[in-house]
Amino acid sequence: MSSTFVGQTLRLSIFGQSHSEAIGMTLDGLPAGLPVDLDRLQSFLNRRAPGQNDWSTPRREEDRPEFLCGLKDGYTCGAPLTAVIHNTNTRPRDYSRLKITPRPGHADYTANMKYQGFQDYSGGGHFSGRLTAPLCIAGGILRQALEARGVTIDARIAAIAGLWDESPFTASVAEKAFPVTDDKVGERMRQAIQSARTEGDSVGGVIECVIRGLPAGLGNPMFDGIENQLARVVFAVPAVKGIEFGAGFAAAGMRGSENNDAFYVHDGSIETLTNNAGGILGGISDGMPITFRAAVKPTPSIARAQQSVNLETMEPETLSISGRHDPCIVPRAVPVIEAAAALAISDLLLGESSWN
Amino acid sequence: MSSTFVGQTLRLSIFGQSHSEAIGMTLDGLPAGLPVDLDRLQSFLNRRAPGQNDWSTPRREEDRPEFLCGLKDGYTCGAPLTAVIHNTNTRPRDYSRLKITPRPGHADYTANMKYQGFQDYSGGGHFSGRLTAPLCIAGGILRQALEARGVTIDARIAAIAGLWDESPFTASVAEKAFPVTDDKVGERMRQAIQSARTEGDSVGGVIECVIRGLPAGLGNPMFDGIENQLARVVFAVPAVKGIEFGAGFAAAGMRGSENNDAFYVHDGSIETLTNNAGGILGGISDGMPITFRAAVKPTPSIARAQQSVNLETMEPETLSISGRHDPCIVPRAVPVIEAAAALAISDLLLGESSWN
Amino acid sequence: MSSTFVGQTLRLSIFGQSHSEAIGMTLDGLPAGLPVDLDRLQSFLNRRAPGQNDWSTPRREEDRPEFLCGLKDGYTCGAPLTAVIHNTNTRPRDYSRLKITPRPGHADYTANMKYQGFQDYSGGGHFSGRLTAPLCIAGGILRQALEARGVTIDARIAAIAGLWDESPFTASVAEKAFPVTDDKVGERMRQAIQSARTEGDSVGGVIECVIRGLPAGLGNPMFDGIENQLARVVFAVPAVKGIEFGAGFAAAGMRGSENNDAFYVHDGSIETLTNNAGGILGGISDGMPITFRAAVKPTPSIARAQQSVNLETMEPETLSISGRHDPCIVPRAVPVIEAAAALAISDLLLGESSWN
Amino acid sequence: MSSTFVGQTLRLSIFGQSHSEAIGMTLDGLPAGLPVDLDRLQSFLNRRAPGQNDWSTPRREEDRPEFLCGLKDGYTCGAPLTAVIHNTNTRPRDYSRLKITPRPGHADYTANMKYQGFQDYSGGGHFSGRLTAPLCIAGGILRQALEARGVTIDARIAAIAGLWDESPFTASVAEKAFPVTDDKVGERMRQAIQSARTEGDSVGGVIECVIRGLPAGLGNPMFDGIENQLARVVFAVPAVKGIEFGAGFAAAGMRGSENNDAFYVHDGSIETLTNNAGGILGGISDGMPITFRAAVKPTPSIARAQQSVNLETMEPETLSISGRHDPCIVPRAVPVIEAAAALAISDLLLGESSWN
Repeated sequence: MSSTFVGQTLRLSIFGQSHSEAIGMTLDGLPAGLPVDLDRLQSFLNRRAPGQNDWSTPRREEDRPEFLCGLKDGYTCGAPLTAVIHNTNTRPRDYSRLKITPRPGHADYTANMKYQGFQDYSGGGHFSGRLTAPLCIAGGILRQALEARGVTIDARIAAIAGLWDESPFTASVAEKAFPVTDDKVGERMRQAIQSARTEGDSVGGVIECVIRGLPAGLGNPMFDGIENQLARVVFAVPAVKGIEFGAGFAAAGMRGSENNDAFYVHDGSIETLTNNAGGILGGISDGMPITFRAAVKPTPSIARAQQSVNLETMEPETLSISGRHDPCIVPRAVPVIEAAAALAISDLLLGESSWN
Repeated sequence: MSSTFVGQTLRLSIFGQSHSEAIGMTLDGLPAGLPVDLDRLQSFLNRRAPGQNDWSTPRREEDRPEFLCGLKDGYTCGAPLTAVIHNTNTRPRDYSRLKITPRPGHADYTANMKYQGFQDYSGGGHFSGRLTAPLCIAGGILRQALEARGVTIDARIAAIAGLWDESPFTASVAEKAFPVTDDKVGERMRQAIQSARTEGDSVGGVIECVIRGLPAGLGNPMFDGIENQLARVVFAVPAVKGIEFGAGFAAAGMRGSENNDAFYVHDGSIETLTNNAGGILGGISDGMPITFRAAVKPTPSIARAQQSVNLETMEPETLSISGRHDPCIVPRAVPVIEAAAALAISDLLLGESSWN
Repeated sequence: MSSTFVGQTLRLSIFGQSHSEAIGMTLDGLPAGLPVDLDRLQSFLNRRAPGQNDWSTPRREEDRPEFLCGLKDGYTCGAPLTAVIHNTNTRPRDYSRLKITPRPGHADYTANMKYQGFQDYSGGGHFSGRLTAPLCIAGGILRQALEARGVTIDARIAAIAGLWDESPFTASVAEKAFPVTDDKVGERMRQAIQSARTEGDSVGGVIECVIRGLPAGLGNPMFDGIENQLARVVFAVPAVKGIEFGAGFAAAGMRGSENNDAFYVHDGSIETLTNNAGGILGGISDGMPITFRAAVKPTPSIARAQQSVNLETMEPETLSISGRHDPCIVPRAVPVIEAAAALAISDLLLGESSWN
Repeated sequence: MSSTFVGQTLRLSIFGQSHSEAIGMTLDGLPAGLPVDLDRLQSFLNRRAPGQNDWSTPRREEDRPEFLCGLKDGYTCGAPLTAVIHNTNTRPRDYSRLKITPRPGHADYTANMKYQGFQDYSGGGHFSGRLTAPLCIAGGILRQALEARGVTIDARIAAIAGLWDESPFTASVAEKAFPVTDDKVGERMRQAIQSARTEGDSVGGVIECVIRGLPAGLGNPMFDGIENQLARVVFAVPAVKGIEFGAGFAAAGMRGSENNDAFYVHDGSIETLTNNAGGILGGISDGMPITFRAAVKPTPSIARAQQSVNLETMEPETLSISGRHDPCIVPRAVPVIEAAAALAISDLLLGESSWN
């Protein structure tokens, strides 16, 4: 439980700890015959990989997945697809103290309560952001398959440190090192990250995702609606504390006459003039782009002194985290959100059964 | 699929259409021996029931559940618990036109695409807000059982029409007809609802929920974290378009040093000075109250003229909805959010297995 | 849990106790637009209904389902389909003693241990064979839908009291009051039942089921193979203690050269000369009829004196069951097995996703 | 789907193909703090490993699992536990022809129909009996954990080639190279295997399993009963074509007075005089040993000429399989059945939730 996504058709099992021998994933339920372009997959993974620039952790991992099974001559063969990434650049000594004195904002304390001291606390163990790499392997493969069906999934930085990219999100920014649409705002965001780093602090942000090319009529009412399914996977991404679809929380302040998306005919098919619904009505797609935003909290690991408690003595203790950490994980989380969305949307499409 | 919640231990099947003979629910997986106070359950259901005041639909339904099985002498007997509510006050004629001309903001169009004309469009069919009554039967029973274990679930109106109740949410407002903490803001909210009604329009809002009494160490990392589970059920409530935990989207604008909740010892146990995490770190409870907010869009059914399309002729058509509708569903949705939370939290508690 | 079938697409929730106000079922996940012939469904249910002849219990129930929702103008509407049967002819007094002195071969004792005295023991409660009626409602509807797709499901009595119907099972015997192929053997089976009844005893038997019309290539390896899925639902039928596919246990005594089904071409498509595999290789259909047999134990409720224990005094007690019981449930279980198979096979077909 | 066991608490993902780089498994949902004795695990795996004696395939694999994550200092750490076995001794050339001319009794044909030519046919691919090694890794770990709780799982050969070991199954035979109770019958079984091998043929058999130490009151009625859960996993073992509990198919020929297990008091607790129910009434344990038998078909790969069809030309073709194959897989399948049972029973125990 917990680290296995159980969809209608797909099962994704993610495994590994920050400093275990390897991390990886098994994706089960894929149709046979899907081509997998490993170079494109590597490019996708590189968008998430650490150590590449000034806003991410200096820990450098190649993040080159080794495929153990499930592929044959470049195509999925119907059997579960397993890929692992061996952990090479680990510094277990950095973390030895964190079992006793939990880091604020981290899962150190809650893991200790749940696993009663048996957890692998080194580097955050199974709770490390490093575990988003296997999610990206699965998501990167599924995103390719979706694209071949005409469904695209693109995310961007919508905000960092309260600075918003208000420009319309019409084109992919996947090629950019800093994935915003408005590079001027992006430059200010990078400065905000740099300031936080200099001050031994961190900043959070918001990621926006748009899914294009889905037909109307996909999804379900109630518990298996598109919102439910996307939320279920997006909250699997560490640091996400909120999700909203279409106008989301802003819709709560609107009147019905503003928020309702009027129907009209465009090129012979039904569309809506606005997209406050984010492409979803009653849990079911209406044919417009599906849009959502995820709130990402600031990286909890900061150099500034913080107040904690020594769990052995139950005495207050001041903590200053010295490991290698991103002052802002939002840029690297952009492809992770795409991967999460690709998982939910692929399962939705595969689950669309027809009786005939 | 879709209308069955499949938790780890609990299964909730919700059935019925707005104008079918009955609506109801089956709750499976309950332990035997839980007392069910039917009077208290009725009080809970009455908080959601329509027709009681000036801000809700004049459609009056008694919403008195009839229990078919699963109870014996006032206690759960271990067998599935089924309750139905017969639909009595239906006016099917109100809706005959909506299959052809879908209402903006409603599931009329998406249901038509998914079910290809076979859906029961009358009164919104299975997509009607009326289907939250069975959810409240299940949630009301579970909320009683949770309370007996020391876990309380309370929701309130946090905002309507952009007006926020900023007062601390420390005490239940379940007894109030208009469930806010600050009645002065509540009065302004009611005026905003009345204005919208007068203008043939509607307003939305935000509901805040707090869950107290859970121990630290419940939940899971990744796909089965507390956020994932709560989001999965809360998005089953019609009109919810966003959810955030703790500081949520506001956390995205904070620095780590602000957002991280410092640990300290209080009365011999670990607590945090702030609760920006909403009681959840790494998907697992930290012992602080679990807090979340859900964004509720304005009721889509409004009297004001709206633009739609006649699906038969594909010609534009102006729609003015004349049925009985709430100008704001937020007050009635407050117990529904409590019910959804009770479902997720009960399953979480029941699923906490120990090997010994 | 337990009384909810969670398939890939279908969810079946069965509820009720032998003497509760009603029993029933909710079937969720059905495609919209399936026609449901209620007369044919009633005929199907009548095959299971009690009180019709000399080999079944004199308890007479009409078993007329009342549909609460999910149907519109004779077609499924995509919303969950719920039907209930009100219990009318109950004699709760018959059973009052069985909570204290459990009947051998029944679930009285195990239910008491699991539900710790809170179970509804009256008439066997949720464990009563009466709960197969809702399974037949679901299965009867699905069997119609399968038939419309060219898939037929037929079961017959293969053996009763050690007397076997060895004739080939090539044609449906659904129309027969006593569903065997060889009526001469059937007559001897009926005599064996009558003898058992006269002696205050009961007999068991074997039911054979054949599913025709499935294409090759359906199913999965490992945990979700056709055998796994069929076994999972067939063991939900009370009194079933074994299941075997194709040659089954007999295959265990064969040599590979006998048991392997040789491939050949027949009318342009691949078939096998024999069908020892029961139409399933590696969990996947090979295009031949799927065949299985289920072992049904003798009805545990017998008039003859049996040894039990008084759970309050822990003293031995002799029990002689005086209620109304079938001396052999095998004939009535034949449509129940068909219903169980229809559930598993429908979910299999609906779950067959294609990416394109 | 298919190769992921989704239990209530446990998730087991099995991956790999006969000739892929590696095979392995991820077991998710294990409690933290379970000790894992890797030497004992290796002993368990050795019982299944090939190439050790005259009745199994000469293909020699070390079957030494490499643990990638989930263990810390010899204990489970709460994170998913992943182990892989690298495939070293593969001869892919042996199998190149089997895609075109499917082997009778194998999944070659059905895999081709399902995966439309994209399957990895080499060595049977994902359908190979080799994939029972990962199942044994999971099962071996769980069997240790169960034993620490006082629950033992033991299987033996009950029959091979129609020769039955009728002796009571009271003690483990895990230490024996040929796991029967009655070694004299065992000797005859080995001769039967040898005869079959000499004649280019194979034999099947029956495996019996007994689970001791479970308390009364575990399990569920209907779809999640103990029989259902055990059947679901046991049919995941290739070549299993039948399962029966307690007296099983023999019960179908008994009278109720014979088959019902009389209750009596033994050492202060309730037991039954016989155990025809196999320890299960109404899907729930009654405190007696849980017993079942699984029918294993003869190995389909035989040297004798068999009739098949060339799928390209659709012409008849005679096939004689020359690879390395067991003339009887029953002895090696004994620990596999124990592993399957350990998985089902562990999930049952972990899923037993108590509200308090």
